[in-house]
Amino acid sequence: MHDPQLAADGRLRHLLTLDGLPRARIESLLDDAARLRAQWRTQRALPPLLAGRSVVNLFFEASTRTRTSFDLAARRLGALVINFDIASSSTSKGETLEDTLATLEAMDADAFVVRHRENDTPALLASHCRQAAILNAGDGNRAHPTQGLLDLLTIRDRKGRIDGLKVVICGDIRHSRVARSDVHGLQALGAAAIHLCGPTALLPAGAAFPGCVIDEDFDVALTDADVIIMLRIQRERLEHATQLDGAAYHARFGLTGQRLARAGHDALVMHPGPINRGVEIDSSVADGAQSAILDQVANGVFVRMAALAQLLAP
Amino acid sequence: MHDPQLAADGRLRHLLTLDGLPRARIESLLDDAARLRAQWRTQRALPPLLAGRSVVNLFFEASTRTRTSFDLAARRLGALVINFDIASSSTSKGETLEDTLATLEAMDADAFVVRHRENDTPALLASHCRQAAILNAGDGNRAHPTQGLLDLLTIRDRKGRIDGLKVVICGDIRHSRVARSDVHGLQALGAAAIHLCGPTALLPAGAAFPGCVIDEDFDVALTDADVIIMLRIQRERLEHATQLDGAAYHARFGLTGQRLARAGHDALVMHPGPINRGVEIDSSVADGAQSAILDQVANGVFVRMAALAQLLAP
Amino acid sequence: MHDPQLAADGRLRHLLTLDGLPRARIESLLDDAARLRAQWRTQRALPPLLAGRSVVNLFFEASTRTRTSFDLAARRLGALVINFDIASSSTSKGETLEDTLATLEAMDADAFVVRHRENDTPALLASHCRQAAILNAGDGNRAHPTQGLLDLLTIRDRKGRIDGLKVVICGDIRHSRVARSDVHGLQALGAAAIHLCGPTALLPAGAAFPGCVIDEDFDVALTDADVIIMLRIQRERLEHATQLDGAAYHARFGLTGQRLARAGHDALVMHPGPINRGVEIDSSVADGAQSAILDQVANGVFVRMAALAQLLAP
Repeated sequence: MHDPQLAADGRLRHLLTLDGLPRARIESLLDDAARLRAQWRTQRALPPLLAGRSVVNLFFEASTRTRTSFDLAARRLGALVINFDIASSSTSKGETLEDTLATLEAMDADAFVVRHRENDTPALLASHCRQAAILNAGDGNRAHPTQGLLDLLTIRDRKGRIDGLKVVICGDIRHSRVARSDVHGLQALGAAAIHLCGPTALLPAGAAFPGCVIDEDFDVALTDADVIIMLRIQRERLEHATQLDGAAYHARFGLTGQRLARAGHDALVMHPGPINRGVEIDSSVADGAQSAILDQVANGVFVRMAALAQLLAP
Repeated sequence: MHDPQLAADGRLRHLLTLDGLPRARIESLLDDAARLRAQWRTQRALPPLLAGRSVVNLFFEASTRTRTSFDLAARRLGALVINFDIASSSTSKGETLEDTLATLEAMDADAFVVRHRENDTPALLASHCRQAAILNAGDGNRAHPTQGLLDLLTIRDRKGRIDGLKVVICGDIRHSRVARSDVHGLQALGAAAIHLCGPTALLPAGAAFPGCVIDEDFDVALTDADVIIMLRIQRERLEHATQLDGAAYHARFGLTGQRLARAGHDALVMHPGPINRGVEIDSSVADGAQSAILDQVANGVFVRMAALAQLLAP
Repeated sequence: MHDPQLAADGRLRHLLTLDGLPRARIESLLDDAARLRAQWRTQRALPPLLAGRSVVNLFFEASTRTRTSFDLAARRLGALVINFDIASSSTSKGETLEDTLATLEAMDADAFVVRHRENDTPALLASHCRQAAILNAGDGNRAHPTQGLLDLLTIRDRKGRIDGLKVVICGDIRHSRVARSDVHGLQALGAAAIHLCGPTALLPAGAAFPGCVIDEDFDVALTDADVIIMLRIQRERLEHATQLDGAAYHARFGLTGQRLARAGHDALVMHPGPINRGVEIDSSVADGAQSAILDQVANGVFVRMAALAQLLAP
């Protein structure tokens, strides 16, 4: 089956998921991001690759972090950005989402950055676009490809490679689009082992993550880990699904300095944010020398630039 | 009486209504829009006619479609756009609208794009401006001049002329500022006949639309029509005013493929959007070859550019 | 103690308060503002001093007036501006304000414009910034330094000097950050006498405003005043604190034409806005020849440009 996010000539047409994206395409996005980053950091200016382009942020879930990152990425490359206000839009007057999209495309919107609580909304919109590109900024528990890319870039920077690494992802794996996109990207780039940890009720059916090791004991999983990705835990879901409160969760799955010592001495600590200090991660670890959390944030802007440029630059 | 939207030398000072606007002025706006469109479509770039200009969107009613169109029009010509948040503004602290306007004008705002549920708010604000221009983006049921202009441009593109055409407008005529601005523009440019259709309770007193034919039978009105403009029906108002539900309305006034066949074989189908599929218009018609609905949307950006440029370019 | 808003070399690092800011620094900000204003007014264009810079508006209290002024100031100098939506931000998901700041700083935000109802929030954030600058846009009743600067610029323009002037400030002094920043600036620049007027319950303890005269009788205070700064009265607080209603307040403290005659014949009338016409000030005075209210608004944009340029320009 043809991947809807690639054009016939192999160029990127949409960015919906890292699942199935060729390794060479992923690496080219990381390379472009690193190149744009180097240029920005030396000159505080970038070529206006997106001049004349218009990008629409369509966020059906609140997310200032990701929206701001896309916004800065697009504008620093010279695009116009429209932050579409869903609440006051025609969608709220009963217009279908497809008609809203067609209307904005008729105004020469070139790309839509979409976040939606339902799986596959970005793919559905992609199937309706005439020319515009869809960038998935997170759909349901399915995919968050730019988060995956920024995590890959951060690991590659600090470890020099992805090939052969042992990565542990800990938290609410079952509901996490971040975990899915991380796994797809890590596997494409040759990670040796990926361990998924968390309370039983928040672990996925194994079939959902082929090639991964399900590990309920975080302490065991951490042994010799090169990279530890902690996920944000939602307290309400935690208590509903597991009867664990924050303290009990922290006791079993919180990343403390003591626990971190079980991993490789140069193990990298990551988190997509926003973090719950003292719940899934201790402040000493989040702010410590092994933490790459703010690097992740910084890299987010550059991988989004790379994706926008591959999709929209002439 | 002097038209407040024209300066002493005949130049455009504000854009409040098409009522009374000279034919030459309307045609010059359409010509400018077509010229900007041609340039944009070949080069994806436009001269920064509005560089150094600041445009404030003052929307007292939600309207993402029109607001986004003005926003893109202004920014693609190089203006800064402020989307003024009414809810958190000083207006909500009891400041008069005139004082809010004077404050923003003191910050060198050059134009205000105003939507308001009350008739004449834009004209009232225009009477208070020292130098800034007011663009009416829809006031009450009185006027929506840029919608009128984009409809005229769309018809002129597809029919080659306005002179001599038979146009049918169907829906809630009584409460429609779109109908009023369309009629004013069509009459100024020489349309031969304008028929207004809809349920009795939603038809205007004849005196409100001099020169138009009031026609309760949509099927009769459609005969030999060159252009059919369907208006969005608001279900609540419909049920309140007419006791018709959506299905009953569709039976009498919905534009189906069968009904469309009564008009000229190349009759143009238009709708200001957002559309209620299956109520005032069938999907087969809205998405069919005779539909110009997305052309209307596209042209909206260019007529707004033309208006902003005539009002603000040095 | 080292002033946290100055760098070791005396350059501006943050703009938190006028309290303690050296006279030369204040005058340099006013001079820069006047220079930018002259250039803008002759050319309607400014050098892109802030190109490549990103400014984040962090408004925890609604304030369209101040936010729009900062927004225009930054963008007219070429900066990107992010209007951070607190309500839908990670802060609302329990992220600490410090982590939100660190996240945005990791995205290369260069400055944060902060308004907060609590005293010292801007100073707290400044202590957490790695490189970014904090501009206080009003915190609690403590400081509103750009309001102070724009008031100083307005007085200097119209009076030719600050030295030796008699200034009367009237209203809810106790809760006013505007009064505090005005007093700090006026004292730094050599005002001869500052009289603070208002109902007893809204006057500060004298110790809070060293060097000022507390004057409950507005008519007496006005004698020979060079400048009269009227503050916005909040009706709810007024009634709660003083049992005065708007009419009673107006009778004792409203600036009428008759009362204005007690001051110097060329006394300047100022107000930070938004004004309550007929309560603290009569329309005939607010709109009269001695009023500088709209000049204050206009100058606000230029002092904010000057502050941003001193903080961020390379």
